[in-house]
This record gives sequence, C-alpha cells and structure tokens, in this order.
Amino acid sequence: MNVTKILQSVKNEELSIAEASKQLSGFSELGFAKVDTQRKARNGYPEVIYGEGKTVEQISAITEDLLKDKKTILATRVSLEKAHVLKNEFPEGYYYEAARCFVLNPTSKSSENYIAVVTAGTSDISVAEEAAVTAETFGNSVKRIYDVGVAGIHRLFANLDDIKNASVVIVIAGMEGALVSVVGGLVDKPVIAVPTSVGYGTNLDGITALFSMLNSCSSGVSVVNIDNGFGAAYNASIINKIREGE
Amino acid sequence: MNVTKILQSVKNEELSIAEASKQLSGFSELGFAKVDTQRKARNGYPEVIYGEGKTVEQISAITEDLLKDKKTILATRVSLEKAHVLKNEFPEGYYYEAARCFVLNPTSKSSENYIAVVTAGTSDISVAEEAAVTAETFGNSVKRIYDVGVAGIHRLFANLDDIKNASVVIVIAGMEGALVSVVGGLVDKPVIAVPTSVGYGTNLDGITALFSMLNSCSSGVSVVNIDNGFGAAYNASIINKIREGE
Amino acid sequence: MNVTKILQSVKNEELSIAEASKQLSGFSELGFAKVDTQRKARNGYPEVIYGEGKTVEQISAITEDLLKDKKTILATRVSLEKAHVLKNEFPEGYYYEAARCFVLNPTSKSSENYIAVVTAGTSDISVAEEAAVTAETFGNSVKRIYDVGVAGIHRLFANLDDIKNASVVIVIAGMEGALVSVVGGLVDKPVIAVPTSVGYGTNLDGITALFSMLNSCSSGVSVVNIDNGFGAAYNASIINKIREGE
Amino acid sequence: MNVTKILQSVKNEELSIAEASKQLSGFSELGFAKVDTQRKARNGYPEVIYGEGKTVEQISAITEDLLKDKKTILATRVSLEKAHVLKNEFPEGYYYEAARCFVLNPTSKSSENYIAVVTAGTSDISVAEEAAVTAETFGNSVKRIYDVGVAGIHRLFANLDDIKNASVVIVIAGMEGALVSVVGGLVDKPVIAVPTSVGYGTNLDGITALFSMLNSCSSGVSVVNIDNGFGAAYNASIINKIREGE
Amino acid sequence: MNVTKILQSVKNEELSIAEASKQLSGFSELGFAKVDTQRKARNGYPEVIYGEGKTVEQISAITEDLLKDKKTILATRVSLEKAHVLKNEFPEGYYYEAARCFVLNPTSKSSENYIAVVTAGTSDISVAEEAAVTAETFGNSVKRIYDVGVAGIHRLFANLDDIKNASVVIVIAGMEGALVSVVGGLVDKPVIAVPTSVGYGTNLDGITALFSMLNSCSSGVSVVNIDNGFGAAYNASIINKIREGE
Amino acid sequence: MNVTKILQSVKNEELSIAEASKQLSGFSELGFAKVDTQRKARNGYPEVIYGEGKTVEQISAITEDLLKDKKTILATRVSLEKAHVLKNEFPEGYYYEAARCFVLNPTSKSSENYIAVVTAGTSDISVAEEAAVTAETFGNSVKRIYDVGVAGIHRLFANLDDIKNASVVIVIAGMEGALVSVVGGLVDKPVIAVPTSVGYGTNLDGITALFSMLNSCSSGVSVVNIDNGFGAAYNASIINKIREGE
Amino acid sequence: MNVTKILQSVKNEELSIAEASKQLSGFSELGFAKVDTQRKARNGYPEVIYGEGKTVEQISAITEDLLKDKKTILATRVSLEKAHVLKNEFPEGYYYEAARCFVLNPTSKSSENYIAVVTAGTSDISVAEEAAVTAETFGNSVKRIYDVGVAGIHRLFANLDDIKNASVVIVIAGMEGALVSVVGGLVDKPVIAVPTSVGYGTNLDGITALFSMLNSCSSGVSVVNIDNGFGAAYNASIINKIREGE
Amino acid sequence: MNVTKILQSVKNEELSIAEASKQLSGFSELGFAKVDTQRKARNGYPEVIYGEGKTVEQISAITEDLLKDKKTILATRVSLEKAHVLKNEFPEGYYYEAARCFVLNPTSKSSENYIAVVTAGTSDISVAEEAAVTAETFGNSVKRIYDVGVAGIHRLFANLDDIKNASVVIVIAGMEGALVSVVGGLVDKPVIAVPTSVGYGTNLDGITALFSMLNSCSSGVSVVNIDNGFGAAYNASIINKIREGE
Repeated sequence: MNVTKILQSVKNEELSIAEASKQLSGFSELGFAKVDTQRKARNGYPEVIYGEGKTVEQISAITEDLLKDKKTILATRVSLEKAHVLKNEFPEGYYYEAARCFVLNPTSKSSENYIAVVTAGTSDISVAEEAAVTAETFGNSVKRIYDVGVAGIHRLFANLDDIKNASVVIVIAGMEGALVSVVGGLVDKPVIAVPTSVGYGTNLDGITALFSMLNSCSSGVSVVNIDNGFGAAYNASIINKIREGE
Repeated sequence: MNVTKILQSVKNEELSIAEASKQLSGFSELGFAKVDTQRKARNGYPEVIYGEGKTVEQISAITEDLLKDKKTILATRVSLEKAHVLKNEFPEGYYYEAARCFVLNPTSKSSENYIAVVTAGTSDISVAEEAAVTAETFGNSVKRIYDVGVAGIHRLFANLDDIKNASVVIVIAGMEGALVSVVGGLVDKPVIAVPTSVGYGTNLDGITALFSMLNSCSSGVSVVNIDNGFGAAYNASIINKIREGE
Repeated sequence: MNVTKILQSVKNEELSIAEASKQLSGFSELGFAKVDTQRKARNGYPEVIYGEGKTVEQISAITEDLLKDKKTILATRVSLEKAHVLKNEFPEGYYYEAARCFVLNPTSKSSENYIAVVTAGTSDISVAEEAAVTAETFGNSVKRIYDVGVAGIHRLFANLDDIKNASVVIVIAGMEGALVSVVGGLVDKPVIAVPTSVGYGTNLDGITALFSMLNSCSSGVSVVNIDNGFGAAYNASIINKIREGE
Repeated sequence: MNVTKILQSVKNEELSIAEASKQLSGFSELGFAKVDTQRKARNGYPEVIYGEGKTVEQISAITEDLLKDKKTILATRVSLEKAHVLKNEFPEGYYYEAARCFVLNPTSKSSENYIAVVTAGTSDISVAEEAAVTAETFGNSVKRIYDVGVAGIHRLFANLDDIKNASVVIVIAGMEGALVSVVGGLVDKPVIAVPTSVGYGTNLDGITALFSMLNSCSSGVSVVNIDNGFGAAYNASIINKIREGE
Repeated sequence: MNVTKILQSVKNEELSIAEASKQLSGFSELGFAKVDTQRKARNGYPEVIYGEGKTVEQISAITEDLLKDKKTILATRVSLEKAHVLKNEFPEGYYYEAARCFVLNPTSKSSENYIAVVTAGTSDISVAEEAAVTAETFGNSVKRIYDVGVAGIHRLFANLDDIKNASVVIVIAGMEGALVSVVGGLVDKPVIAVPTSVGYGTNLDGITALFSMLNSCSSGVSVVNIDNGFGAAYNASIINKIREGE
Repeated sequence: MNVTKILQSVKNEELSIAEASKQLSGFSELGFAKVDTQRKARNGYPEVIYGEGKTVEQISAITEDLLKDKKTILATRVSLEKAHVLKNEFPEGYYYEAARCFVLNPTSKSSENYIAVVTAGTSDISVAEEAAVTAETFGNSVKRIYDVGVAGIHRLFANLDDIKNASVVIVIAGMEGALVSVVGGLVDKPVIAVPTSVGYGTNLDGITALFSMLNSCSSGVSVVNIDNGFGAAYNASIINKIREGE
Repeated sequence: MNVTKILQSVKNEELSIAEASKQLSGFSELGFAKVDTQRKARNGYPEVIYGEGKTVEQISAITEDLLKDKKTILATRVSLEKAHVLKNEFPEGYYYEAARCFVLNPTSKSSENYIAVVTAGTSDISVAEEAAVTAETFGNSVKRIYDVGVAGIHRLFANLDDIKNASVVIVIAGMEGALVSVVGGLVDKPVIAVPTSVGYGTNLDGITALFSMLNSCSSGVSVVNIDNGFGAAYNASIINKIREGE
Repeated sequence: MNVTKILQSVKNEELSIAEASKQLSGFSELGFAKVDTQRKARNGYPEVIYGEGKTVEQISAITEDLLKDKKTILATRVSLEKAHVLKNEFPEGYYYEAARCFVLNPTSKSSENYIAVVTAGTSDISVAEEAAVTAETFGNSVKRIYDVGVAGIHRLFANLDDIKNASVVIVIAGMEGALVSVVGGLVDKPVIAVPTSVGYGTNLDGITALFSMLNSCSSGVSVVNIDNGFGAAYNASIINKIREGE
C-alpha cells in the first residue's frame, strides 16, 4: 500500500476521501464483515471466502468488494444452491462442483513446476479437488494421482515418478492415513498431509487419520486440519512460489 | 476332566476327597485367587499368570498350584526383581528379560510352520519379545523380523518372503502403525496387529496406533490391546495349531 | 500373474497391448479409482467394493471391471436404492437387504467346517448378516446363533455346542460387549469380536464395546472396527481356509 | 438435634455457650475444615474422613472432633505412614492395610443379612477390601467372594448360591467388567458395580470398565465411581438396613 | 421353574413336548430373538422390551410370546408410530406418550411406600416419566417432584419432606447435575441418579452430568446410564420391594 | 419479599391465600415447572426462559406467570416458529431473529457505560447477537465490533479504542479463539470469552476454542460455555451495574 | 508511557540511550525472556511471573528487572526449594507456602470491599490460597470461607451473609463442583468459578468439575482454568477495582 | 546408489561381498535395527536417531554404522547421561544440552537465507532449541526470536522484520498457541507450527495448542506433532533448500 500515492490522489481529487480512508484502513467495512484488503500485500494471496457459515448474500457482497481491486476470487465450501445464485450475479465466474469452489479471475499459470495431489481412495477425491482447484486458482500447475492407497501398494509405485518430480506433494487420506508415511519415506520434497473424515467407527470423523499423520515415522511431513484441502494447497502454493523464485 | 475316573479314584482311596473335590470344581481355591485348572481342557492352553497386579508371593503360589499338574507355566509382565525370587524358588524356570516373561515346562515345538513377529521399530522390541516368547512357550516356531517400518520400506520388501511364508503374521508398531496396512495388503495370511505405546504427543500412549490399525484399509487384519504381545501370540498360536491339524 | 504367458499372448496377437499393459500393472485405471486386479493373487480374495462413499455409477464401473476376470463380486454397505440400480444392470446379482450386500458369482462352498456368527442381541443382527453373507460369498459354511447375550446366559449355554464345534467364532455385541469374554472363556477356537454401535449414552457409538473387547479377560480374542462385520468374516474366512488345508 | 434440650442445658449451665452454638450450627469449625456433626442425623451415618488430600494432622484433628460424640470413625485412603501416626494417637483404633482404612468404634453387627463382595480378579482385592471394611464398620455382615471373573465362569457358578442369598451384591471388576452383567442377569437383588482401574491400554484407568457397567445389558445394576469401594459399601449398607427394617 | 411338574404334565399329555421343551430351555426361540422366559424367576421381573432397535413386528412378536404366560409387559423407547400399531394389536394395552412406554397387565400396587422421582428441570421430564411409568408398572407408588434444580434451591426445600419420606429417591438432572449432590446430602435413603443429555456445549450429551454424579461429594449415590429412566426405576423397584419384605 | 406486607394484605383480604402462599413460597407451581419468582430479589435479574427444551405452550405459560409481576421477560433460543406463536399471544413482545430471543418489557438503559461485544468472524454473529440483545434487555448500552479476527489484526487495532473504553468486553470466537488472548493482552477491563462452535475438524464443536480460551496466556479472561452468548452478557451486565454503583 | 518525557530525559542526559530504548520498546530483553514493562499501563497490573516452567535463575533475573521500576512482584507456582533461593536474594520478599507464591512490594489495601474466597473442601485450600494471596498482593481485602461443600449444605447457609456481601465471589471446588451452582443461585455478585483437580476416577484431573461449572444452571458464573487460583483472583481484582471507582 | 559401480568394485575385489550386499540392500542389519543407508539418497537427509526409546549402546552402534559413510549424525532426545557416554566414544561429537541433541559432522552452512525460530514463552525454549540445532546441523542459518507471545504483542511487532525476512518461520507455542495465528496473518512465508506441552489443566499436554493451531484462522500454517521441534526444522530445512535452488 503506497500511502504517499493515496494521499496524492486525494489531493488531486482523483480519489474520494471515503475510498482513500478505506484503502488506508486496510479493510472494507461491510457491517457483518471487515474485508481484509491488505491480505495480498501481507500474505501473498488475497482474502479467500470461506463459504460455509455465510449466506449467499454475504458471499456476494464480499466478492463484489474484492472485485473492485480486480483480485483473484476464491470462495470455498460453496454449495450447489449458492453457486447457482453466484453464477447468476457473476457470469464470468466458474463453479467447480466436485471441489465446491467458486472462482473468478484465476491467476494465470507461471511455470511447469507442479504440485502433486495424491489420494488414498476414491472417497477422498472431493477434498483433493478442493486442493487442486485452489492451487490452480493461485497459478500453480497440478498433477492429480488418485486412489493409490497402501492396500494395493503397487498402484503407488506405478505413479512414484510423478510424485517424486513434483515441487510439493499433498497427500490426502482418511481411515488410517498410512499412505502419508509411505510417501514421506520415498520423496525429498515437502509433504503436506490432509486427513479426511472418510471412514467409520474408530476413524472418529478423521481424528484418527490426523493423529496418525502427526505421528508419522517419516520426517518431512506437516499436517493441516481434517478435510482442509484448501489449507494444504495454500501452503503448497507458497512453497511452490519459492521454487519459482518469487 | 474325566468325572468317572475321579470318582473311581476316590472309591479306591487313590485320591483324597479334598483333591477330588478340587478337580471336580475345576479350580484351586487360594483365597486371593481361584486358579482355573480346567483352562487347558476348555481353551487349549493352561491359565497364564498376568504378573503385573500380583505380588511375587501370589505368583509363586499360583505357579506351585499349576505345577502339580505339570502344566506349562507362563508368567508375563514379571519385573526383574520378582524374577530373581521366582528363579530362586523354581530353579528350573527361565526368565526372558526383554520379554519380561518367566517360563517353566515350555511345550516342545511341534512343527516348522512358524509365526512371523514383525516390528516397525527398535522400541517395539520388548512387546515383540513378549509375543515371541509366548508363542515359543506354547510350542510354536517363531521368526523375528525387527525394524522394518515404512519410513524405509525397502527394508520390509527385503524381508517379504519370510513374512509371506509364515503361518500367521504378528505386526507390532507404535506411532502411526502404518506398517500393518502395508503388510496386510501384501499377504494372504491372518495378520494380528499389536499397537504399542511407543511415540509421544498425539500418539496418546498407543491409542492412535490402535485406532489406525482398526481402520486399516487392508482387510485381513484383527487387533489386540495396546502392548499386548501375549494376546497376539495366544491368538496366533491357536491359528497355527489349526494349520497343524490340531 | 504369469508374465511370460501375457507376453506370449501379446506376441501371438491374442492380447491387445492396452490389456496386457493393464494386466502387468496390476490395476485398472478408471480415473476415480485404480481397481486392484492382483488382490486375489496377493491376498487370497479379490478386491471388495466398499459401497458407502461411492456413487452407484462408480460401484457399477468397478463391478464391470472386476467381472472381466469373472471374479467373485462383493459390494458392502450398499443401500436399497443403489441395489435397485445394480440389480438392473447386473440381473444375475443378488442383494441381501439385511446385510446391505450385493453379490455376484459367489464362491461355492468347499466344506462343512463352519464359521459361527453369534450375536448378543436382536439389534446386532444387521452387522451379523454382513458377516454371514461375506463368509458365505467367500465359500464358507455359516451357522447363525442370534440373541444369546449374558443377561439370560442360559440361552448361550443351550447353544454352546454349536459354538464350540465351529472352525472360527465371530461374536458380535454392542452395549458392554460382555458376551465376548464369556464365549472366549469357553472355546478353544479363534474368537473374532465385532463391537457394534448398538446402545446409547456411555456406549459412545460402540467405542465402549470396542474397548471392552480389547480388554477382555479371556485370551483368544482379537477385534475389528466397530460394526465391521465384513472385516470379521474376511479374517474368519482366511482362518477357515487354513483348516481346510488351503 | 433436639434444640429445646440444648437450650435447656445452656440455661442450666450444663452446656457452654460455645459448645451449644456449635451443636446448633451443625458443624465444628476447625479452620481448614467444617466437620459436619449432623451427618448421622441427616444421612444415617456420621461423616467419613477421606484421607487422600489431607495431612495426618488434619485427619487427626477431625477424628478428635468426631470422637467427642463417640461417633463411629472411618478414615479411608489412609496410607501406611499416616496409619502409624494415627495408631499412636488413637491406640484403640485399627488399621486395615489391604483396605487402607483406619477404624475406631465400629458399629456392632445387627443381623445375619449379609452383603456379598464379589471380585473378578486378584488385583481388584484392595478395592474390595475397602468395600468390605466399610460395610463391616457400619454394622453389616459381609461375605467375600474373590476371583470369579468370566474367563473361568465355572468359578462363579460354584459360588452362585452365596451371591444369590445376599441382601445386596457389590461386584468389583476392572478390565472389561463383564462379570457385572453376568451376575446382574442371575440375581434378584440390587447389584452395585464398582469399576476398578485394573488393566492397561484401552482400559483407560477404569473408564472402560465404568462405561461397560453403565451399558450393562442386565437391568438391576447401578454404578459408583472408579475404585470407589467405600461408596458401593455405603450404598449397600443403606439398602441392607432397609431389609432389617431400620 | 418346577421341572417335575413340567415332566408330569408331559406324561399326562397336558403339555405338548414342544411347549415343555421351551419351558425347560427357559427361552422362546423367535429366530431374531430368544425371549427369556425365566427372567422373572431369576431377576424378580419379566423381560422388558427395549423398543429402540426393534421393528414393531419384532416388538409385537415378543409381546405375544410373553403374554402366553400372562406376564406384565413393559416396552420402553416406543415411538408414537409404533405405539399406534401396538395399540391396534393389543387394545387392552396403554401407551404413555411422555414416557414413550407401552404397558400391558401392569402389576397392581402393593403398598404406600413410594419412590420419589425428582427432576432438576422441565426438560428432564421425559426421562422422569420413563422412570415413573416403569416403577408404577412394576407395582410401586410414585411421587413426582419436578423442576427443583439448585438455581432456585428454595423450590427443593419446599419439597424436601416428600423426598425424605420416600423409600428410594431417583434424581434426574442434565447440565451439571448438581441437584444430586444436594439431595444426597439431605436424605438417608438410597439415591439413584440419572444423568440426562439435556444441555449443550460442554454438557457432551450428558457425559458431564454423568461424571459429575459419579464424583458426587455426597456418599449414598449410585448412578445409571445417561437418560436411563427405566434402569433407575428398575433398581428403585428392587429396593422398594425389600422394604415391603419381599 | 416483604413477609409482613404479604401477611397484612391477607389479613386485609387484599390478597387471596393462594396468591399469598405462592408469594411466600417463592415460586409458581405450573406442574411441569416451578417458576422462580424470587430470582430478581436474589440474583438481580428475573428468571430467564431457556427456550430450547420447552414447547411453545410451556414458554407461553411461564411468560404469563412472570408477566403478573410485570417482570422483564427474556426467552432465549426461541426458534422462528415458536416466535410467531409467542408474538401472537404477546403482541407487545419483540423477536430478535439473529439473536433468537423473544423480549417483553425490556429494562430501560441507565447509563452510557457500555459493554463491547467483539467477534472474530462473521459466523460468530448469531452468538454475539444473543449476547447483545441480552445485555440491552437488561438495561445496558452495547457497542458491536464484528469480524476483527487476528488473521487481519489491523482490523482489531482500528477498533481498539472502542474496546478499551468499554466497561466490560465480551469476546466471541470459534476456530482457535486466538482473538481472546490478543484482546486480553491489550485492555484493563474484565474480558468474558465465549467460544463458539464455528469451525470444523479439530474444532470439535467448540471444545478447542473453549480450551484455548481457558489456557489464554493473557490473565484477565474468564470463560462461559460454548455458544453461551446469554451467559456472557448476564455476567457482563452484573459487572457493568457495579460500575454504575448499583 | 510518556514518550516526550523519555526523549526529554535523553536530551538532558538524565537517561542513557540503552535505557530509553528499552522503555520505548516496552520490554526488557533478557535473552530467554522479554519482560513486559508496559503490562501495568496496558492491563492495570504488572507482569506476573509464572514460576512452574522457569529455573530459579530465570525467576530471579525477571524479578530483578521488574524491581527496577519498583513494581509489585508476584511469582506463582514457586516451589519451596526455589523460594529459599529467592528469599536469600530478595530478603524483603515473602513466601506464602500454602499458596506457593513469592511476593515483593505488595500493593497496599485500598478499601474494605472484599473478595470472598469459598471452597467446597479441605483439599481445595492450596488453590484457594493462591487466589487469596494474589488478591491481597493486588491490594484487595479477602474473606476466606473454606469447606462449605453441598454434602453438608447447612455449613454454606451459615456463611451465606459473608458471601452475599462480597464484591466478587470466587468459588473453588473439585469433584463435581456443585457448590458453584448453589452459590450462583443465591447471590447477585459476579461468581468466578475455579475447578480443581481434586478427586479421582471420572474427575479426570478436574475436567469434570470444569465442564460441570461451564454447564451451571445458575447464570452469573464464569470459569477459569483448572487449579487457576491466580487467574480467578486477577479477574476478581479487576472487578473489585471497578466497585472502588478505579 | 550406483549399482554398476558397486558390482565393478566387487569384481575388482575392492569391495567385499558382505559390504556390497549391504550397500545394495540399502540398510545395515544390526539385529535390533535395520539402519537405513539410502535415506539421504531418497529423502535428502541421512537417517536421524530418535534417542528416546533406545539404549545408549543402540545409539552408539547406529552412530558407528552411519559414520562409516561419513554421514552427518543427529541424535535427538538424548539425555545428559547418555550424552556423557556418547561424548566419550565420539569425542569429536557435540552435545547441545538445552536441545538434548548429539551432533557429529554437521553440514556446513550454505547461505544466509535463514529459518526464524519463534517462541511464545520462555518454557517453549527447549523445543525451540531442538528445532534450531536440527536446522543448523542440516546446514541452515537460524535466527532465534524467543518470548514474543501475544499477552504482550508489542514484543512481536518489535521483531516482525526478522520474522518477515526469514525463508521459513517456525512458531513454537504451548497454552493456547495464539501466536501462530497472529504470525500467520502477518507473513507471506510458510509457517510451520509446533504445539508444546507447556501449560496445565485444559492444555491437555499440548493437545489444546495442537488443535488450536490446526484451526488457525490464518491460512499458511501447517502443523507437526506436539513438542516435535525436530520435525518442524526438518520440514523447514527442505523448504529452505528449495529457495537455495537445491
């Protein structure tokens, strides 16, 4: 945020005092929300809209506010119903149904360094798609490698080169999460593990997969919250940008 | 228990009424314990002494009672201190320090069908030895395969033939217990998993390894209590006897 | 998998390169799934379809793939709705409603050695049927002994001979799971315990029954996940095959 | 508490104002404690001293205060060290080491109706003794039936008459606590269950036994806190007094 | 069960062999259930039907079987829908909606000794009614004292005489369950505590109330499972019968 | 409660004996509830109606009873459906939809000392509104400061003066609840923290936010139950009255 | 912190640049710690030293740093061993053994408005003393009311006036924590509840008391961490200052 | 691992068959351990010795084996006692007492890109030192920023530049772990969070800090196991190497 430039614009009457004041404050006051307009400057990415606890009106209002600065818009955990409304209001937007993400102005891809998104099973795919769409929206290349859980470990070995050559590896697994440790023992890249709530009984809605991953006997593994495909991709994206020298 | 034979012996005055009464009741009354003298007839193995909550005097008294019938004696969770006392009283006994087991009259080995005892790490060895000594005391052959955890999965593959050719496979692991799922996906023998309390933080004293194993994506796995090497070997032994046609 | 034979067939143009490549890889790539075509060779049983997290289209596609090799098909946790669709597509299939299993090409029974499926109560029967149908689909004889919980323990004793003469005993119980310990103390066969989520309050959706079974004072007991009738039968089936000398 | 009588005694100068005031307040102020002198009038039994969190000086001071009214003194959870000091100060007191109870002026037994104290194993005996000594101190007859756990259920049946003929049955068990349900299904007397912290792994220091007992499939069972032998006996004693028409 | 009499009836052809065999076995085999016909002889009360996990057809079949012996029928946790069906089939039955109990042939009241059913709040009433109806069906007098929680403790004191004069006191409370300790400190009768799942957040569906009650600083309290009004009344009924000299 | 005055009124026949008796008892007996009519005298505020477990008829009856004394009525956790009915019966009442509160006769504001109600996110607003409406109904001024969570901490600093100048600060946050510690470290007023159930996975329905707040490294923080906006405002109101010299 | 004054002092060479720089930074850099020198200005009280995780050398160094500004020093959770060392280095300091607090330069008492510190039992006293000493060190009057738990509720009523007349009430209880709800229902002052780890079994080291208090049916209660006597007193002190018009 | 080169050496008799066989197998068989000699080739770093569950003899033997290849040796969780023995055997090694790490042949630093190691409090320093020493041993520059927890948030802002300019940020915090979210909201670098077991009561040995961090409202945060300073540094090191173009 260039303070001098803002003040100059006010002086030149190119910028209203209300708008200048908002730009200096670093957030837009919407009453129900204070949209963080400095997020990209501070964190490298603009504010992402977590759709679950918000009404479609709230998502829409925040989107509109962020669009003023032509920011990349990513709204996660958006239901099909809400997506229909958003699509109507923002026809240039795109809804990824499996990922439950609504995207506007995605960042264009900057290189062929890719993030590998690996799942243990078929039921983990919705979390994987949230990760993949997030990473792509943030300008990363992504390679999807699904259903290579350790019950049939030859499926993993058949895809090992694609995993080893990635910039960062996201491993997504429910049940006992054993795939994370196996992958972690075979690669020299950062592994970001996402436990999923897939399973029953002692899976405890993903707590077991989470604890399993935190206890991984393989060293280069860090973990995000259960079903948090977005968070894993966000982290992977930061790391991938490092490789690209940003 | 042959009732007619007992009664005949009483009639012939070959057996005291007190002893006959005890044999018919199926247990020896020691006051603090009622030693189950019919356990072998019912379950295939004589009563095993769980040493943890018992004084050395109690272990000794139960041992003495079981010895009357020349039974195989196995006392588990016996500390070194208690073992010294027991060794003094029963010089023909043997104390396995790593396994913390005291053994008398072990059953002789009946065949070359073996139980594989596999561990993920070095710290799991004490539980593994409890399992191995139990299995050997009950007359089984045992093959020990230690420290083949998935962080270096080539160590497992180098030992896979020995695991595949076993009659039953006991897999012992702490931390995240991923080894169980990998082994379970590679063999067609019963896999009995033993979670250990090895680990820290979210390992929760073995609960995470346990839940992980119960959620294994591999199908032929059943599980026993945390650190219960004895229980795994007991089960494996019953199954191994089936193979031997008993 | 006979590699030489596959290569010979390619040479003879009896096998397309695509098909040969799939056979050598050991799995069929369906995009959302990598169907494990070597499972039977490795584990003794073909891949089983866990129906819960899958759409009926996914179940159907995997079924079709497995059918190419005329494999025994077992899909578990299949709802009545999905079953109607599957039945339409695979008219020779059979849906077991109580067990929620869809079966095609069941293995024919090989002997009279049977697996006993024992329940504590009436509410445990759906889990028991999953176990029984799984075992039968895999070619085992099964004897069902339902509602013999310890609140009326004479019901158990009246059926004890059938339990004792089984090859393997599966005991299924919710609430406090006490039946497992009583049965475990009376038989010399492997006992596989299945905790169920039947109960309320401190039952904690089956966790209490599970922990109870893992702490059983009877020795020959191993445990599978809550409500996992399939897993218990899979294990029992492996053990029963041992008895039959396979 | 007869208020008129107290006031009369004050008037007659037979009672100091300090003492009268204390009697009317219903407790003795010791600074660190307010000893409840009306407990017997309200609850049927005088205040019992829980020894665990208290110094021996505190136990001693409360004992002295209670002795003024010649009350029955029961101090539970008293260590051997504290007991030596107490025994010195109150030579007529008796210390039950296994029960860890210090007793003075026990109530004399009023009838032959007895409380059965039943344990599953040998390691449960210390809790059982706390129960038995409490019941005896409160004037009840007690029958001890130890080590009749369900792993050898014939030991229970051999003692069933003694259990059935009791006025109240206290069942004490650790591990999975299955004994409670079996006994509960065989008697028509109140069964008070005491879970113990005996066991390891998923026993969770007695929580599993506790939850198991609360989920008992047998109906006439109520439960007290883990290792709370005292509480079970207190309840049993109240019930036994009912039978005796008190 | 009079064996001689049954055999005599068979001999006299007054009893079919099928019926005699069932009477001797002690249960009726219904396939999905083994109805315990000796429950009353053993436990003092006939088998009670827990309605939750059962279809209305199963409840109906068990009811029919129990009716053959003109037993008192109590089915708990019966929904309104199931009740309509049952009422149709057994028009002489009565459905208590608040208690969710279906009753046939209630035992007639034997004395004026009553069980007090006390609740902390209005939301605990459904559990309280299950307790009250159970107690009444088993022939006890009941006094209901509702909404006397400690936030307004004068409401409790205004009803204390009715509580003190009861034979047994059932205290039902959710949230923090404090009422149990206060009542326990004021009466000399057995107090049976029922935690309810009333509350939110850290109430944990009644676990907090349960643990609170198990830790009560008042001594004469025992506890049953969360929301288990039936179990409390069953216990209270056994104790009340003792007072009546049964 | 002026006893003399009540008795005088009875004597003068200005008050019926029934009504006098109710006033002296301190509660109104409604059968399903005993409405605490002395709550305001004892606690400073009249009884508040917790709407969740109650039927609209019950809420209505209690409201009517409280209205007799012209008390301020606050019913919390009232659904929109119930509110329609209440609004019909009590047209002068007002329903706050976001707060889910029904209010009648709110206390008029007494001063400009205000309570700050601060939230971390947009999804916490419903809990915040319950707090704000409660505080306003009890006569407090309220300042709402929403969506100032630490992910964009400049939003908090921009509002810090309003927070610092409050009489009491209520901080409402889900997820990890970090806002509480940051605010606690910046103000010298009492901070009352309300964890919300906003979040997923390891949020555990608010338990994580709760435990986080209880462990706050900032000292002047106390905590109420998860989502308990009412409780926080009740506490804040008591404290605010102190400032106003009440 | 008066910035102008500091700069003036630097200019006048009354203050070294190093010291001025530290004063402006708001903390003293000790390497292992950054002592917060602005805490009193921000929060009303200087930084308190939590002694548990710190060596006596660290406590001593922080004390020395704080003493430079003649601040009130309070170090909590200080063991007797550490206290001896501190007493040697700071002879004017005082160690409160029961409270485990080391105090220097306590604030002098400003009024007779007092904080009531109430405990349920004798074992809660160490936590109570931490609260009382903290409050007194911060310049508050304190009234101690110990051992008034609800098992003998008349002891509470005998002390109710002292509780009602307090400015703030701290209630400290372990086990089931019922005292909090009873007190909360009887007073119109803020009640700050401190759960203690006193108890056993399902007390879960104080978690049960904590959850119980958070679920209190009485409204004006807020809670601090288990055994956190200091935190309760800190809060109470802030509130008490409000009454005193600070 | 260059297979051809190994075989050539065998042919040339430059390498014994035993040694070649070990090199080809990828691990050294020590009986109690299978040292992974390919770890560096696969994962970028040689096998690290976790010292906790191992005897000093075991640590020593593994060290010796790894030294043959002149590998960097890092043994973590090594007690002072074990360190004395190791220092004796490997005099060129260095023991970092605060970090509890034993190091031999550390990798030399390759650049000035540094990893920031940030702690909330003084008690978190031992975990921080494990992280810092690990990172340095692996050739990274490290900047330590200790005791900047949010209770005095100006301490954090005073050090923000050093944090923002790091390559990767490790944030270490116990209690409620709020520092992680605040830092995460202010930087555009990967943040690896380490929860510590520092705290008491509801801290639950670090589980609360862990869950708090997993629920962080800031996006670029991933988490490792409780107290796992090593794991955080391992991850940070992999990422830092990416920046350095490795």
